[in-house]
Amino acid sequence: MITLASDFDSPYPAAMRGVLCANTDARLVDVAHDFPRQDVRAAAFWLRELLPTFPPATHLVVVDPGVGTDRRALAVRAGDHALVGPDNGVLAPAARALASDDDPAYYEIPISDPASSTFHGRDVFAPAAAAVHDDGVDALDYAPVDDPVTLAFPDPTVVDDTADGEVLVVDGFGNAITNVPGDVLDEHWGDYATVNGERVPVRRTYAAVDPDEWLLTVGSHGNVELAVNRGRGDDAFGVSPGSHVRIALP
Amino acid sequence: MITLASDFDSPYPAAMRGVLCANTDARLVDVAHDFPRQDVRAAAFWLRELLPTFPPATHLVVVDPGVGTDRRALAVRAGDHALVGPDNGVLAPAARALASDDDPAYYEIPISDPASSTFHGRDVFAPAAAAVHDDGVDALDYAPVDDPVTLAFPDPTVVDDTADGEVLVVDGFGNAITNVPGDVLDEHWGDYATVNGERVPVRRTYAAVDPDEWLLTVGSHGNVELAVNRGRGDDAFGVSPGSHVRIALP
Amino acid sequence: MITLASDFDSPYPAAMRGVLCANTDARLVDVAHDFPRQDVRAAAFWLRELLPTFPPATHLVVVDPGVGTDRRALAVRAGDHALVGPDNGVLAPAARALASDDDPAYYEIPISDPASSTFHGRDVFAPAAAAVHDDGVDALDYAPVDDPVTLAFPDPTVVDDTADGEVLVVDGFGNAITNVPGDVLDEHWGDYATVNGERVPVRRTYAAVDPDEWLLTVGSHGNVELAVNRGRGDDAFGVSPGSHVRIALP
Repeated sequence: MITLASDFDSPYPAAMRGVLCANTDARLVDVAHDFPRQDVRAAAFWLRELLPTFPPATHLVVVDPGVGTDRRALAVRAGDHALVGPDNGVLAPAARALASDDDPAYYEIPISDPASSTFHGRDVFAPAAAAVHDDGVDALDYAPVDDPVTLAFPDPTVVDDTADGEVLVVDGFGNAITNVPGDVLDEHWGDYATVNGERVPVRRTYAAVDPDEWLLTVGSHGNVELAVNRGRGDDAFGVSPGSHVRIALP
Repeated sequence: MITLASDFDSPYPAAMRGVLCANTDARLVDVAHDFPRQDVRAAAFWLRELLPTFPPATHLVVVDPGVGTDRRALAVRAGDHALVGPDNGVLAPAARALASDDDPAYYEIPISDPASSTFHGRDVFAPAAAAVHDDGVDALDYAPVDDPVTLAFPDPTVVDDTADGEVLVVDGFGNAITNVPGDVLDEHWGDYATVNGERVPVRRTYAAVDPDEWLLTVGSHGNVELAVNRGRGDDAFGVSPGSHVRIALP
Repeated sequence: MITLASDFDSPYPAAMRGVLCANTDARLVDVAHDFPRQDVRAAAFWLRELLPTFPPATHLVVVDPGVGTDRRALAVRAGDHALVGPDNGVLAPAARALASDDDPAYYEIPISDPASSTFHGRDVFAPAAAAVHDDGVDALDYAPVDDPVTLAFPDPTVVDDTADGEVLVVDGFGNAITNVPGDVLDEHWGDYATVNGERVPVRRTYAAVDPDEWLLTVGSHGNVELAVNRGRGDDAFGVSPGSHVRIALP
């Protein structure tokens, strides 16, 4: 199985599907092609959440603002999975999440000249993903990479009943997903918290508050989320990715 | 075969695909993931139109404004098909459309604690759909449900040459799909009707009128549609889902 | 393998998927369903770029502003590929790109009465694509068509160091793709060109200029593109499909 993820929107993913179908019989499953444009951090966050739900697979990821520069192309072995994509950190959090004891192990995919300089998804990464899927990373003669670009999400500061964190991403519902771990709310279900100065109910489900009412909850990713029942938390709380969030619990 | 439908947009459907792939070898086919957010009635309408085009399959449907509340999770046997989703009426019209003589039959999917309270699509419905697909609803030890939440579309009133109905949904082209059955137009192709006071040609095809001209036609679903050739009927007629529509035929 | 392409957006493609699954075991792969609405030329451009990346397949294409009129339905043999869609030119450029010596060969798909007059994608083209895939165009008793609607992209004028062309399509990134062949830039990488009076760097990659800076480059399709690194070329250059573009090279 090969999964596909990109920020290409449409119709460019079709060219990757075509090249994959021309090079392998692997089943193809789309992850998403509308990650925020050229936003390596947002894509890295979602891939870390989503790829571990899959059985062993090769994951083709192309969020690549540096396409055509000398940034490397990577293949990664991570547990029973493999990842293929640019060396800009987008693969790193998912690779760590999927890894077993002796990996993730990074390798450099050679880029032959004259590969297109603007569409490595089609011309470099898709053929490489087909080869990685069919043969395995270890069978290919790729050079090991010791220093892949890393990417880590910022750590929150939790002191007593106050957490200082930031918004990592906003999902399509408008839920503002923070880096604050959900367990800070463990003893506070049913309470009210103060979020950036506003009093907000702490509830397990969106529907536990009335429509258009704000709430603090734990999303499916396990992090604290600023949300509005049937509305947009990002607009209500006035936050976007990178915004500071201070949560004070009673 | 398992079909997937939701109002999740992207990237959350990928988590359902991952869980499905991890639990079954079934073929996956997407129906749509951009149903109007938390709009049970619109999703129910589309599913009733779309699912009968498929061969026997398990249909996973997650439009679920009550996620995490005590609303039940349902599995439904309907003819040679099965459906899996929340007990809020979203499955009902499609289940009736797919049913044979002795069903639809509704069953309750147990929700184990501590299932995530915000993402039952991934944690409850996807694993259940895999089980229903692989084993069949009847082989699973689910308790029968006698009183599923029902959902019916409003009936129009047709008296002589006047039909009073309402807009059920608006499609992506802007066509306003009403609950008025298409056969009211049977003797009137080529005529002009009066729609909410406006004189409108009754035509079989969008292209039978000039670009930007209004028309009354029968959509692929068999209902009367307010449309504009190469334009948006909802904007032109000033209607949205729930709007009253009076059609007077000559 | 059957590929699907349309301007239907969602959820109508699901009805084509359902009909295909009900009529054939072929693998289904989506090309795109968000081609610009009823824009035959844009779809024809993208299909010519995308379909040749696929291995031999049947390509179902429904961009069909004349649905329900007397425009013909076509099946096309083109090399090891087949195409199915309306006779409005949308298939022609891709068919020529896929063709071998003795084709493309065009055939008329009979439209039985009473096919729906508004959704030939579901009622005419999808069943035909299943039949073409399973049996091959030549085995079906379709009448040959000698005069399919043709579609050609305008030729640019290149005289000395000045090219006069036009914008064919704008992609989702905002890159304005012209009809000027990329090789006019061959001797000019690193230079500055004049584009509609503005001085613009000629670079191989978006990232070769600073964010928000304009550039002239060659896209993955091989044509000259007006672009902005991490921004929208169409907005910056003030162009849209059909706009005249004059490129003067030093």
